[in-house]
Amino acid sequence: MANTQTLTIQVPATTANIGPGFDCLGAALSLYNRFQFTRLPDHSESPIIRATGHGAAQLPTDAQNLVYRAFAATYQHLGQTPPAVKIDIHLDIPQARGLGSSATAIIAGLIGANQLAHQPLDPSELLQLAIDLEGHPDNVVPAMVGGCCLAAKDLDDKWQICPIDWSPEVVPIVAIPDFELKTDLARNALPETCGYGDAIFNMAHLGFLIKGLEQADPTLLKTALDDKLHQPYRLKLIPGFAEAYKAALDAGAYGLVISGAGPTLLALSDSETADAIASAIRNQWQTANLSVKTQVLSLDRQGAIALST
Amino acid sequence: MANTQTLTIQVPATTANIGPGFDCLGAALSLYNRFQFTRLPDHSESPIIRATGHGAAQLPTDAQNLVYRAFAATYQHLGQTPPAVKIDIHLDIPQARGLGSSATAIIAGLIGANQLAHQPLDPSELLQLAIDLEGHPDNVVPAMVGGCCLAAKDLDDKWQICPIDWSPEVVPIVAIPDFELKTDLARNALPETCGYGDAIFNMAHLGFLIKGLEQADPTLLKTALDDKLHQPYRLKLIPGFAEAYKAALDAGAYGLVISGAGPTLLALSDSETADAIASAIRNQWQTANLSVKTQVLSLDRQGAIALST
Repeated sequence: MANTQTLTIQVPATTANIGPGFDCLGAALSLYNRFQFTRLPDHSESPIIRATGHGAAQLPTDAQNLVYRAFAATYQHLGQTPPAVKIDIHLDIPQARGLGSSATAIIAGLIGANQLAHQPLDPSELLQLAIDLEGHPDNVVPAMVGGCCLAAKDLDDKWQICPIDWSPEVVPIVAIPDFELKTDLARNALPETCGYGDAIFNMAHLGFLIKGLEQADPTLLKTALDDKLHQPYRLKLIPGFAEAYKAALDAGAYGLVISGAGPTLLALSDSETADAIASAIRNQWQTANLSVKTQVLSLDRQGAIALST
Repeated sequence: MANTQTLTIQVPATTANIGPGFDCLGAALSLYNRFQFTRLPDHSESPIIRATGHGAAQLPTDAQNLVYRAFAATYQHLGQTPPAVKIDIHLDIPQARGLGSSATAIIAGLIGANQLAHQPLDPSELLQLAIDLEGHPDNVVPAMVGGCCLAAKDLDDKWQICPIDWSPEVVPIVAIPDFELKTDLARNALPETCGYGDAIFNMAHLGFLIKGLEQADPTLLKTALDDKLHQPYRLKLIPGFAEAYKAALDAGAYGLVISGAGPTLLALSDSETADAIASAIRNQWQTANLSVKTQVLSLDRQGAIALST
């Protein structure tokens, strides 16, 4: 990163949970937000925040902006005062849809601060800080490192990351409804405890998912993409789920799940069937008078990167 | 299997749960029971059951014997009357220790019946029947097919099996106490529900275990071998657990967990450290006036097999 006075960071969208992997599994997708940080003279008004793109008008452009909060939190963590900064945000990831737009803001703020501060934090420290700021690991981890990742605490209560192999033959398709669903609402839909049977069900299915993604094995994936911990409680918050599920499976998807806390839906399939699945969901929603945008994506394997500017 | 009138079946011990994989993950170990089935003339008294080896005197030798019950259940499943049969059992696996001795009996009874009946059931049907008879999959599945296996129900409510790669560099060490622990007692120690945090903890750790076993990765395995669903409630039933845990980890084990419902303890390590870990546990238990037998084993990869007689 040649110039630490201006830098542009690209951070991928992420899909968390992926069916059984509630609150521990996430994957980065080929859809990106971009964040340009420009250091201002010390006496400048700060922060100056501008946003363009998808839902830009909704973003706070003062110190409440999430990118800036993560930026300032990083300096606070370092025991330093954040410098005056201008942040230009370009959003291609729709907000409040279950595609990790908040995670991109947190990761950008952290990396932006760390770069402007001449990299005092190593990647592992940045990741711990990101998880602390977000509260759970499943979006921020793949947003930072790319690919599909599992996170768990070790015996010293420190987060460890386990990369999960994802065959290029397994294609993610997202169906993004034109309504928002706040994560808080989706979280409040869950009970406080679950039966042992449901916990065991999800554990076993997560194992199938891990091996199914690695091997692009249709039988494993069709079994894997089921869940008893979150989806049964959240479906009612997503009109059209049942229609999308049937359309996707009838068109040959391995399964269809809620992306993160929703309302975006994620289907997985082989590459030959992906376009047909996207069309089937779109058509089914049109018939039901619901509006949706579908995209056939791929796994992002880079995570957050600095772009040459 | 040349002679269907007499056949000998060898079935491996199994270790279920392996820390986070409660009630869904199990692995076959290089320790075996053997079962010889001899078809008797139709008018014979039946069954005739004889047992030798570890704890043989405790086995019922009438129709209540578990091998015979599984044998008879298989014929019942086929809509046939079980033929007169003599069953000679040789036990090398200690009973009621959490090493799957019941599963060996069920698998032997099923395979014995299927062979004597000229194999009307394919391996998949035998496996479904075995899980139905045992009530859960984690011992019977690896006992039948060998290796490390995960089991989960698919969308049609049918059991599917997912083989889990287990590197030869990961060595299982068992510490078998000289007391029994009935599975019912261990099951009754569990609450009916668990917090979401505990379920998520086990899911994530199971994922680490799957990748750790595959890659023989010490960091992943040290994080993986932890559990919040069953062990915290069962430790009190196993005097000496804390001592064995400390001894094993101090000697270099990746972790130490309860094998199945206990009281056997299972440590995992690399091959160079395994003997030292076995000694360390033994010495620590001697100091605490507890009696234990330790064995450095390997993963059994064959499962149940017919032996030439």
